[in-house]
Amino acid sequence: MGALTTEHLLNIEDLNVEDIHTVLDTALSFKEVNERTIKKLPTLRGRTVINLFLEPSTRTRTSFEIAAKRLSADAINMSPAASATVKGESLVDTAKTLDAMDCDLLVIRHRYAGAPYIMSQNMRAHIINGGDGKHQHPTQALLDLFTIRERFGGFEGLKVGIVGDIAHSRVFGSLAPALKLLGASVTAIAPATLLPARPDLLGAGYIHDLDEVLGHLDVVYLLRIQKERIDQAPFPSLREYARLYGINRDRLGRMKKDAILMHPGPVNRGVELTFEAVDTAANLLLYQVNAGVAVRMALMYLLLGGDRDGTLA
Amino acid sequence: MGALTTEHLLNIEDLNVEDIHTVLDTALSFKEVNERTIKKLPTLRGRTVINLFLEPSTRTRTSFEIAAKRLSADAINMSPAASATVKGESLVDTAKTLDAMDCDLLVIRHRYAGAPYIMSQNMRAHIINGGDGKHQHPTQALLDLFTIRERFGGFEGLKVGIVGDIAHSRVFGSLAPALKLLGASVTAIAPATLLPARPDLLGAGYIHDLDEVLGHLDVVYLLRIQKERIDQAPFPSLREYARLYGINRDRLGRMKKDAILMHPGPVNRGVELTFEAVDTAANLLLYQVNAGVAVRMALMYLLLGGDRDGTLA
Amino acid sequence: MGALTTEHLLNIEDLNVEDIHTVLDTALSFKEVNERTIKKLPTLRGRTVINLFLEPSTRTRTSFEIAAKRLSADAINMSPAASATVKGESLVDTAKTLDAMDCDLLVIRHRYAGAPYIMSQNMRAHIINGGDGKHQHPTQALLDLFTIRERFGGFEGLKVGIVGDIAHSRVFGSLAPALKLLGASVTAIAPATLLPARPDLLGAGYIHDLDEVLGHLDVVYLLRIQKERIDQAPFPSLREYARLYGINRDRLGRMKKDAILMHPGPVNRGVELTFEAVDTAANLLLYQVNAGVAVRMALMYLLLGGDRDGTLA
Repeated sequence: MGALTTEHLLNIEDLNVEDIHTVLDTALSFKEVNERTIKKLPTLRGRTVINLFLEPSTRTRTSFEIAAKRLSADAINMSPAASATVKGESLVDTAKTLDAMDCDLLVIRHRYAGAPYIMSQNMRAHIINGGDGKHQHPTQALLDLFTIRERFGGFEGLKVGIVGDIAHSRVFGSLAPALKLLGASVTAIAPATLLPARPDLLGAGYIHDLDEVLGHLDVVYLLRIQKERIDQAPFPSLREYARLYGINRDRLGRMKKDAILMHPGPVNRGVELTFEAVDTAANLLLYQVNAGVAVRMALMYLLLGGDRDGTLA
Repeated sequence: MGALTTEHLLNIEDLNVEDIHTVLDTALSFKEVNERTIKKLPTLRGRTVINLFLEPSTRTRTSFEIAAKRLSADAINMSPAASATVKGESLVDTAKTLDAMDCDLLVIRHRYAGAPYIMSQNMRAHIINGGDGKHQHPTQALLDLFTIRERFGGFEGLKVGIVGDIAHSRVFGSLAPALKLLGASVTAIAPATLLPARPDLLGAGYIHDLDEVLGHLDVVYLLRIQKERIDQAPFPSLREYARLYGINRDRLGRMKKDAILMHPGPVNRGVELTFEAVDTAANLLLYQVNAGVAVRMALMYLLLGGDRDGTLA
Repeated sequence: MGALTTEHLLNIEDLNVEDIHTVLDTALSFKEVNERTIKKLPTLRGRTVINLFLEPSTRTRTSFEIAAKRLSADAINMSPAASATVKGESLVDTAKTLDAMDCDLLVIRHRYAGAPYIMSQNMRAHIINGGDGKHQHPTQALLDLFTIRERFGGFEGLKVGIVGDIAHSRVFGSLAPALKLLGASVTAIAPATLLPARPDLLGAGYIHDLDEVLGHLDVVYLLRIQKERIDQAPFPSLREYARLYGINRDRLGRMKKDAILMHPGPVNRGVELTFEAVDTAANLLLYQVNAGVAVRMALMYLLLGGDRDGTLA
């Protein structure tokens, strides 16, 4: 078969274990397609894919647009400037309008948690959450899972530490539950000010001291510090953050031999990672980006039922 | 045949009665195409369609872009931010530049009435007016006509009331003359402050009191109030406007049994229509949006002479 | 063969004489394609072309986008608003990210001289400089060369005067060395304030008085005055500039019989050229724009090795 048990990807919880492996397996095939000179499949010819990005984004929007075009879909971008939200149109009305234009698949990035759900309730299209507020970013989680699975062969028993602004991270919001579902153990590593008010409800272990666990981790996942919001940041300074939670030469030396560094990008060099540490991690960070296109192609393919044709490659 | 008697759609008056029915008939075929899984025809392969939108727009720009792509044209978007108008290039120079790039069809939205005409005088391309100032919006009129014809089977003898800011409405500017041409009777319904200075020159009857005619109308067409310009609005308040000209439960009850509500969207809920009335009208409002893509496909097809191939479906 | 000796077009100096003629010959074929009803070749199907324009532009960005689409490439636009540069991502990180998405060809316009070089050092993609700061704009030079060669049959012995803001012109930076390489003689014509500090290092002759050389020139190339920066302009007024360096009826009359006027566009009417002179020059200015699409198609085709298929037309 190959199809998923869900019609949408609103939250990572929409996928069960088998779904996740189906996405990752399919992405592996698309990754090979992307290495060809002619990176193009006719699979979604005549399908209308709309990328509605109501927050600025380069990587994610471009990644989705490339994914749609490589599958021969008609890809339409709608960005903040162009959006009718300037005329005060509600999200529900936007959903119904795009639905009336016979949109097949909508990718939405929005500053409000739950926006993708609203779209799914008001459209016939399949919906992919491209990041909603501080809530979830499930395609980021899937490309991270792809990367981890390729590196370790699976998830069972892996020790993953996720470091940084846990409280406001949509990356954490999708990645942590997925890793748990797949049998990895997840530890949130952050100062109290960057943990949610009730960290006991995180669904993951938590700890303040990175150095206490660093040597036991298989994956050290560094969340991005929102430098552009540093004025309201709940820590004294970037330098202080880097000293306590940044990866530098010393900490690199204390990691397990096969442990990997991950980051959703773009990295703040000198904050989450020193310049030296970025160089060490570079190949894997770019592997994540590369996997992102393949994972998004896989999701579009599987949600739009491309499997019926059986014409993946 | 199927071709039109005009090379451009600058004003609705460019189309005669037969032209209008040709557009609507062709749109009906494309509407069926849009209901398929594979919404794609090779008709305009290798044609260059430029969407030059110098006012913000979601619905209309997206509708045209989808239309062009479903016909396999190469669709290029040019928006205010990207536009060379920041370098002070005149509209004439923009026209000649795009012409030199062998543009086949230009869709233009511009805040100045007459901008599409200027383009048509300086380009070999076919021009479609996507809305020019307070002047005309002929593709909106055509999708409205499509909707009305599908509902009533024709136009002869229909009583249409158009309610709201008649003086500044490009929707009225295109729809009213078209309806008259097709044999419907049109009444402009607005306070004196929202009628032009010489309403006797409107080419339509006019009246201030909606309730006086409501029970006789087959179509109640509500123009959009520009809430974002409410500070200079020539009426006391939105609440006052809604009380006198908005459709609410009471007025719904006094409409003819088969009468329909129309609106060009997006609706200001609680102003032109109460939340309840929107729900009553919703299906038809979305039918208008849906018809919009099909009508725009039909225009592109007919203007670019796709009929020569006879390969519509 | 047909291929070029370079993998990138960062500077005009990347091309030798034979390369330049190969580009112009290939562009001539594409110019014919662009005159067809169906302006489309399958040559770059499945290739990913990214247009990264970090300065506002209409003509150049649209020209590249049309070129890519007519060759059937998947064309992705990235503009300032959408760009992750708002998140402080470095150019190097942007390069590596786009590389990881398997971009085949990147067109970059950037306000910093050397930005295209940085991209070429950090990507596997072919890079085309779409204009970098005050440094170079090699595709503009190539379309100018195309225009000159079509008009004069060659370059040997031609006398070319380039008039205006030599010091800050990326157009001059690419065009002057190319013309010299091809055997033309180039004179920079400008007041001392618009010449570089050491005009003796220009690689071209220079002179302050247009009228002294006007009657000897085969090509009078007028650079664009940046009116939007007029407040810091190093000359007293636009009127003064127009009087000394603008082409008017009198100067038109003193040009050689077969001499041509060229301008990269958009023209400031009344400054570089009077309204009357623009009309005289109009056909050629638009010929330049037209050649621009063909030249960009040729570059994409040649850099991406389309010649291997031998399926140009």
